[in-house]
Amino acid sequence: MPHKIAILGASGYTGAELVRLIATHPGMDIVALSGERKAGMSMGDVFPHLRHLDLPDLVKIEEIDFSDVDLAFCALPHATSQAVIKDLPRDLKVVDLSADFRLRDPAAYEKWYGKPHAAIEMQKEAVYGLTEFYREAIRAARLVAGTGCNAAAGQYAIRPLIEAGVIDVDEIILDLKNGVSGAGRALKENLLHAELSGGTRPYSAGGTHRHIGEFDQEFSALAGRSVMVQFTPHLAPFNRGILATAYVRGNVEAIYQALRDRYDSERFLEVLPFGALPSTRSVTGSNFVHIGVSGDRIPGRATVVVALDNLCKGSSGQAMQNANLMLGMDEAEGLMLAPVFP
Amino acid sequence: MPHKIAILGASGYTGAELVRLIATHPGMDIVALSGERKAGMSMGDVFPHLRHLDLPDLVKIEEIDFSDVDLAFCALPHATSQAVIKDLPRDLKVVDLSADFRLRDPAAYEKWYGKPHAAIEMQKEAVYGLTEFYREAIRAARLVAGTGCNAAAGQYAIRPLIEAGVIDVDEIILDLKNGVSGAGRALKENLLHAELSGGTRPYSAGGTHRHIGEFDQEFSALAGRSVMVQFTPHLAPFNRGILATAYVRGNVEAIYQALRDRYDSERFLEVLPFGALPSTRSVTGSNFVHIGVSGDRIPGRATVVVALDNLCKGSSGQAMQNANLMLGMDEAEGLMLAPVFP
Amino acid sequence: MPHKIAILGASGYTGAELVRLIATHPGMDIVALSGERKAGMSMGDVFPHLRHLDLPDLVKIEEIDFSDVDLAFCALPHATSQAVIKDLPRDLKVVDLSADFRLRDPAAYEKWYGKPHAAIEMQKEAVYGLTEFYREAIRAARLVAGTGCNAAAGQYAIRPLIEAGVIDVDEIILDLKNGVSGAGRALKENLLHAELSGGTRPYSAGGTHRHIGEFDQEFSALAGRSVMVQFTPHLAPFNRGILATAYVRGNVEAIYQALRDRYDSERFLEVLPFGALPSTRSVTGSNFVHIGVSGDRIPGRATVVVALDNLCKGSSGQAMQNANLMLGMDEAEGLMLAPVFP
Amino acid sequence: MPHKIAILGASGYTGAELVRLIATHPGMDIVALSGERKAGMSMGDVFPHLRHLDLPDLVKIEEIDFSDVDLAFCALPHATSQAVIKDLPRDLKVVDLSADFRLRDPAAYEKWYGKPHAAIEMQKEAVYGLTEFYREAIRAARLVAGTGCNAAAGQYAIRPLIEAGVIDVDEIILDLKNGVSGAGRALKENLLHAELSGGTRPYSAGGTHRHIGEFDQEFSALAGRSVMVQFTPHLAPFNRGILATAYVRGNVEAIYQALRDRYDSERFLEVLPFGALPSTRSVTGSNFVHIGVSGDRIPGRATVVVALDNLCKGSSGQAMQNANLMLGMDEAEGLMLAPVFP
Repeated sequence: MPHKIAILGASGYTGAELVRLIATHPGMDIVALSGERKAGMSMGDVFPHLRHLDLPDLVKIEEIDFSDVDLAFCALPHATSQAVIKDLPRDLKVVDLSADFRLRDPAAYEKWYGKPHAAIEMQKEAVYGLTEFYREAIRAARLVAGTGCNAAAGQYAIRPLIEAGVIDVDEIILDLKNGVSGAGRALKENLLHAELSGGTRPYSAGGTHRHIGEFDQEFSALAGRSVMVQFTPHLAPFNRGILATAYVRGNVEAIYQALRDRYDSERFLEVLPFGALPSTRSVTGSNFVHIGVSGDRIPGRATVVVALDNLCKGSSGQAMQNANLMLGMDEAEGLMLAPVFP
Repeated sequence: MPHKIAILGASGYTGAELVRLIATHPGMDIVALSGERKAGMSMGDVFPHLRHLDLPDLVKIEEIDFSDVDLAFCALPHATSQAVIKDLPRDLKVVDLSADFRLRDPAAYEKWYGKPHAAIEMQKEAVYGLTEFYREAIRAARLVAGTGCNAAAGQYAIRPLIEAGVIDVDEIILDLKNGVSGAGRALKENLLHAELSGGTRPYSAGGTHRHIGEFDQEFSALAGRSVMVQFTPHLAPFNRGILATAYVRGNVEAIYQALRDRYDSERFLEVLPFGALPSTRSVTGSNFVHIGVSGDRIPGRATVVVALDNLCKGSSGQAMQNANLMLGMDEAEGLMLAPVFP
Repeated sequence: MPHKIAILGASGYTGAELVRLIATHPGMDIVALSGERKAGMSMGDVFPHLRHLDLPDLVKIEEIDFSDVDLAFCALPHATSQAVIKDLPRDLKVVDLSADFRLRDPAAYEKWYGKPHAAIEMQKEAVYGLTEFYREAIRAARLVAGTGCNAAAGQYAIRPLIEAGVIDVDEIILDLKNGVSGAGRALKENLLHAELSGGTRPYSAGGTHRHIGEFDQEFSALAGRSVMVQFTPHLAPFNRGILATAYVRGNVEAIYQALRDRYDSERFLEVLPFGALPSTRSVTGSNFVHIGVSGDRIPGRATVVVALDNLCKGSSGQAMQNANLMLGMDEAEGLMLAPVFP
Repeated sequence: MPHKIAILGASGYTGAELVRLIATHPGMDIVALSGERKAGMSMGDVFPHLRHLDLPDLVKIEEIDFSDVDLAFCALPHATSQAVIKDLPRDLKVVDLSADFRLRDPAAYEKWYGKPHAAIEMQKEAVYGLTEFYREAIRAARLVAGTGCNAAAGQYAIRPLIEAGVIDVDEIILDLKNGVSGAGRALKENLLHAELSGGTRPYSAGGTHRHIGEFDQEFSALAGRSVMVQFTPHLAPFNRGILATAYVRGNVEAIYQALRDRYDSERFLEVLPFGALPSTRSVTGSNFVHIGVSGDRIPGRATVVVALDNLCKGSSGQAMQNANLMLGMDEAEGLMLAPVFP
């Protein structure tokens, strides 16, 4: 019998992506969908691409009977998310896609998100949702905090290199090219087609992007000391996808080998042949990650490039993978959809 | 046990789309892939988005042992297709995606494709692959001829209207907006990103597009007399999708009702609420078709708009749906993938 | 000495396009720019692509001293425009880019724009701004009403054919493919890159688009009786450009000849060789219009296709051309900028 | 009287861009256009966006009478260019847009371009065409070698910083996002719209891109010792534009000041307010360069971001600017066209 699923905040892009994935998932049934401003609407009205599905209408969260729910995906904005999750039944499994439970240190949360955390007790309980590195804890978790999409991309490039001790942790530069869906469905001038298509620009430069908090937390924990990366994202004119170009220092063969060793057994992480470079186009619409490594004419330098779909593996696909684990299913259940190309 | 599938001409976009669909199809296994110029390569080298799949390498057609194949998809260029299919085992089920077996009249084939048909006997045997209108014949067929992608889009708008006798068959205008993948992976200047993105233009205007042969054949058969449509396709800067805007004459309520009546039981054909208009974005990556109807301030005029994914429902998805029927499976098996949005 | 120019409503796309054109216009100097919500900002802050220009800051309209202005471009929203223009000095030359003075019949204005006209007396004074057809009146006018961008595209296809009597005026269908800048800089969900790129859809179908009022007015006047066209615009994923595909009935040679005869002496209207079809890409960024004609396999049918840049020839370029005439300059002054390709 | 101009290799994108710029240049007349494979065609047939211009037809180079030419732009492929230029009259001014005369050291040419230089004597005569840094030499030059478009973007970020001694020259990383027109009109699978739109990927990684030769030459000369940068370009889905993100080490205020000091008197180089970041969209279609500087949370790190139009300031616009100098005109003549936005 399929597990009963609620999606809170289903009227945004990550909510829609969860519905897309569950549509062909054999082990999950959607029993409730919430959307505050769109309560009362059908999902097909909000997202016509989902109109063929037999789904419950959007309701307000307080209208949901959680006693009938096995797991809730929480795709709400940060700050809202912690307030909502705090009031959910204590035995309800929750996968949170917001930023609210990613940072273990309340001070770090306050620093990056500008206000104190309102559910500090729960933060301790939360498991960081980078599946391939927290798998066992996720399997046992009640509350899993999905990672930032940029944070996922950067960590797939760097974590095995810190673990293997093959790079200089003080010399990591991450240059990201980001599709627009990462900014959500918000009505902002800079997200209009007329403003954004036909070119590119950086944003949140200078070490101000909030996902840096995750890098600091994770890389420092791995290295056993403070690690800070230089990180610049760029908004690029495509809807899905993150390409992370990581500039690192170390022996390139050792770097390549560390990634191969770490990921060879992972079903969604594909390390390309040495020297081959990934494209976001080859992972769009899927939960797969392509990783390429290149040396440089300057000895001791290397480039690691990671491509993933920010809405899928960077967000909702990751959430599904974690939910599969939390519900005792194969983590790839419902997630083997091939990328859509062209 | 899954059916054993061969794909001939797997190195083009429709071949790749077949592989994408079969990747999560529970009743099909790919046992052979051909690609003349790319024989010897792995599918992952030709299409990196498929590299996670365990697939046979590309071979030349003559290397395939068809005794071990239940059904072959033939995604070869027209003319090549008839030459190849002619030599396949007589009991092998074949779904052809080329234009070679779409036109029942050899003279029509010669007129539209510029040379005599080389497998006239087989043409008689072929069933036209517009699933919802040839379902029973397809179920029993050995050879099914996939429709043109434009021909599919236009027929979904018009066929029920001719059947129901609610439009003037001499007054049908079809204006199509076509994504670029319909032109295939051919190296043509006008298909370069630099030439094509950022604008639109018509092509094959004036009644010269080959898919018109299918409209003539099918609409005339339905009407019981010669029917000719005016048809103009336009190349638009997106990768997947056809939007067909059909201008027709008749009572708009009767037109809407005829479409609802005909399609209400069809799983892939969605008639939107009266007045709602479809977007190709809502069907991209899927086998679904969205159909909208609008009246006009001029009495007796109506517009029927059809949106589908040319590579999926317009080509490889249709082929899969037909193959499912030919192999005795549920026609929707493996095809319920939700559209990818955004 | 250059003419002194004010632009009211300079913070929108048509305002920016006017500034772009004046930047290299030898006979115009910008002395005032207004932008209500952005008053106090520099133009370079609102539109960084204009930051190299030495421009006055944006102010509120009431801050402008019109005694020092030779001509004002009014790029305000409709309804606002009539209220503002009503209060401008009576001897100030004005080119209005809004819809407010396009329709000579106040009842037609009220029908299409949903409220009574507030400056009816001035409406009589206004000259319709389709330069090539109202040139002499424009030269003498004090107030010129810029046409709708769709209305311009459609009229360039159809007017010479009505004038020459070579088409059936009851059988005109206009199918338009529109770039997104026509919708302006408004924050609407359907204009977000994530919603709009990668596909197409119709809008304002069924004879509800406001520019139809202009077709009715102009075509009926030309024909000497009521003429109604069937008109459907489609939103397409490019920033600039309108492609108008006009389906007409008549002798195609006569149709082609009527267009050649009418436009051969026009500097901005280029009739392509018979059978050649235009692309919006070939006129982007310029004031040029490309027009192509194709016959059809159905005798007596023809297709006329018009490509123009909605922001330039469809709006601000047209406004400049008219201002040149009103100020006694060569109408092409400052407008011979070649299209930008690729 | 306007100077008489020939364009050799006018059928490519840089040739078309030269024609676009000359179209409104008061001091230049095109008297000859060459295009080997397209000899005999009109420019309007090859590039319909230029059909309104009165231009000579394309001819073969040997058909041109250079005695009547004041300056030739040579927009031919590298290797072809040196062979052609070698045979031009010795007193003809030449602006070469190819790579053939960029590298002063013949060994460097052979290393990066794979074969010996065939016109070594002329290489000594050539002046490197980065206008703002070689202005006086260009004014006196007979042969100017246009820079690589990437090389221009990177140098605008870095040169003033080396000159001012404010960065560590061993720690320069350049990450570029490149529009597709930089690859020219070549028929390559990876340049098809269907392959390229909707995502991004790196290319020529690892220090293999040929423009690195220019960085080595120029930066080493400035620093007085060998300087090597780490350089990775990425192909992004827009037609025009390069965004160069330069990661450097030094005091960010000093870095910003060095750029301001160096560029304040330059008409085409705009240093944005501190912390503001440029977009390629704000320079598209123009000869302007926008430069932004950001510090980082890691002390001693900074990011310099440069946006330019690869076809204009990165290639044909630069060539025009140099030609203006060589012909004794104001270097900005004909180049003050404002960027096209949106």
